[in-house]
Amino acid sequence: MTLDQQPVAGFRTFGTATRGEIVPTVPPASTPARGTAVDVTALLERGRTLATPVLRAAVDRLAPPMDTVAAYHFGWIDAQGNPADASGGKAVRPALAVLSAEAAGAAPEVGVPGAVAVELVHNFSLLHDDLMDGDEQRRHRDTVWKVHGPAQAILVGDALFALANEVLLELGTVEAGRAARRLTTASRALIDGQAQDISYEQRDRVSVEECLEMEGNKTGALLACACSIGAVLGGADDATADLLEKYGYHLGLAFQAVDDLLGIWGDPKATGKQTWSDLRQRKKSLPVVAALAAGGPASERLGEILAADARSSDFANFSEEEFAARAALIEEAGGREWTAEEARRQHAIAIEALDAVNMPEQVRAAFTALADFVVARKG
Amino acid sequence: MTLDQQPVAGFRTFGTATRGEIVPTVPPASTPARGTAVDVTALLERGRTLATPVLRAAVDRLAPPMDTVAAYHFGWIDAQGNPADASGGKAVRPALAVLSAEAAGAAPEVGVPGAVAVELVHNFSLLHDDLMDGDEQRRHRDTVWKVHGPAQAILVGDALFALANEVLLELGTVEAGRAARRLTTASRALIDGQAQDISYEQRDRVSVEECLEMEGNKTGALLACACSIGAVLGGADDATADLLEKYGYHLGLAFQAVDDLLGIWGDPKATGKQTWSDLRQRKKSLPVVAALAAGGPASERLGEILAADARSSDFANFSEEEFAARAALIEEAGGREWTAEEARRQHAIAIEALDAVNMPEQVRAAFTALADFVVARKG
Repeated sequence: MTLDQQPVAGFRTFGTATRGEIVPTVPPASTPARGTAVDVTALLERGRTLATPVLRAAVDRLAPPMDTVAAYHFGWIDAQGNPADASGGKAVRPALAVLSAEAAGAAPEVGVPGAVAVELVHNFSLLHDDLMDGDEQRRHRDTVWKVHGPAQAILVGDALFALANEVLLELGTVEAGRAARRLTTASRALIDGQAQDISYEQRDRVSVEECLEMEGNKTGALLACACSIGAVLGGADDATADLLEKYGYHLGLAFQAVDDLLGIWGDPKATGKQTWSDLRQRKKSLPVVAALAAGGPASERLGEILAADARSSDFANFSEEEFAARAALIEEAGGREWTAEEARRQHAIAIEALDAVNMPEQVRAAFTALADFVVARKG
Repeated sequence: MTLDQQPVAGFRTFGTATRGEIVPTVPPASTPARGTAVDVTALLERGRTLATPVLRAAVDRLAPPMDTVAAYHFGWIDAQGNPADASGGKAVRPALAVLSAEAAGAAPEVGVPGAVAVELVHNFSLLHDDLMDGDEQRRHRDTVWKVHGPAQAILVGDALFALANEVLLELGTVEAGRAARRLTTASRALIDGQAQDISYEQRDRVSVEECLEMEGNKTGALLACACSIGAVLGGADDATADLLEKYGYHLGLAFQAVDDLLGIWGDPKATGKQTWSDLRQRKKSLPVVAALAAGGPASERLGEILAADARSSDFANFSEEEFAARAALIEEAGGREWTAEEARRQHAIAIEALDAVNMPEQVRAAFTALADFVVARKG
């Protein structure tokens, strides 16, 4: 994988964004400048429609009770075992994996085992991370360890991880072996990122570089793999796959920067999360670490307040106003604008990597539109 | 994988073995009848010597603190981080993987990535199983979750599992892809076996068939993979690999039957475990389930006693004599002799599978000697 992390040396703030603005500053969409109109909703829907039946068939292979526990995790059944609506998030990864096959001149269907394998690895990591982090809720539902106990969360996570490799390797082709190798690299990065996340939680301060490295591992690496896996299955060479991974990796960092903005300033109606969600969880996200690194009076004041918060026994009872005051300080110190600029910068690197790949123009337009969607989203 | 589980219909007991005999009845060694003398100790030592440096180098790739946690698990350092003696068990799997390459006419070194991958998967499962089962000790040392916490046990288990695939797939050959596929199948069986183990613990009764199926998944499948993986890396065809897996699978069942005998009647000096170890853990092992399935007065009495034990709040304070009485009932009901016979039967099936593979005679003699060793061992 091409990590290609830009040094964050020369870090500077860009002044304070307009107060009271809930939605963060988003990068300008690049689609209009590139000509081809793309229906992003249709792209996401296509990925979902192609991948979901194959994903469900793969999960059905699990022996009871693991099949049921997995089906609960994916939102296909409720805690009582009754059918439920598969919500399943935005499905950006399946859309990318399917497009990735088309980038190599193959049919979208060629990318499907890759899309399914990536989704299985993603969900393996969610199952284990929720348990390690003690998170009781995910997408407004109790997490698996909360409903079915820690042992099932470990076991079913393991099973999904194994299944991801099975789905690829049973294709029995040279390309499948290459795809599995890239998926393994991404999985290792995902695990490294979780290790970093755990160790950072125990520390008072995390640098911007450390935060970006962790986000690259936790979000960038698997998105990178989603962007190359279909192409590899479609016979692309390693140089092409590396460039597609570079696109995906930086898209992942842009995605995460936007996520970190929405985690503080997002509109609860759009994000489905509480107000000031990441602040309530004391998350050392990009706006926070950037604000703390910026220096100056607001940065120093923020540092004092967050240090006191970490020792406070009353944190759970903080009011809306108290969180709003912290958000305002983060913004005043430049953390919000720096993060928005970081999203724009990562978006630009992603698009640049794309430009270096020879692919059908409508596929390029679709990748570009997805990149724009990822950074412009409100939830 | 060729599971080829023999039906246990026609189940019958073979009378009561000599009382007071600590060491279980063992199958006759097949080596002398086959002519070639084999030094089993040297075979095991060769596997360990070839695999250990590569295993350590693989584990060294893990990011801190996962490398340290893994090194503790493997016994290379103690809980304080000081170098420790690598005990690491009998190392049967590495010896088999290396032999497996020779069965395909390749150099033993060709099997090493397979040996390392199998060891990584085995240890991934130990890390997770110890946590799921709440086991605080393994090989006389505190388990990883006990020393480093549950999150590290999950995380490092995940990392070893990913590393197993990495070690194989980075070879970049068609054979490596085939080997990884077989390893994935074995890993899924391992996970299925643990799921069965967990569900059986919550039940009063487990059938002999269920117990054998679980032991096939937990012990047979990975031993099967160890026996084919070197051959696959050495270019063996699927039919040959399947036969080697059949040998390994039944060897695994023989191994486990012996383990179950030693878990009750083994000499603590040889096994390193407490007397009546499996009885103290209320383990539904083969001698127990066979005794319960046998019928007759001793079987019925045993059933009543174990049912009362399951409800007893005083179980932790049971005396040596109370466990000895239970062991005597298991033996009287025929559970000990049935299990010894089962070990002999599985050993014979393993040797028969071996006979169907075309391989150098000295390699066959080595496989045979290892099979004899596995069932004749006292600890």
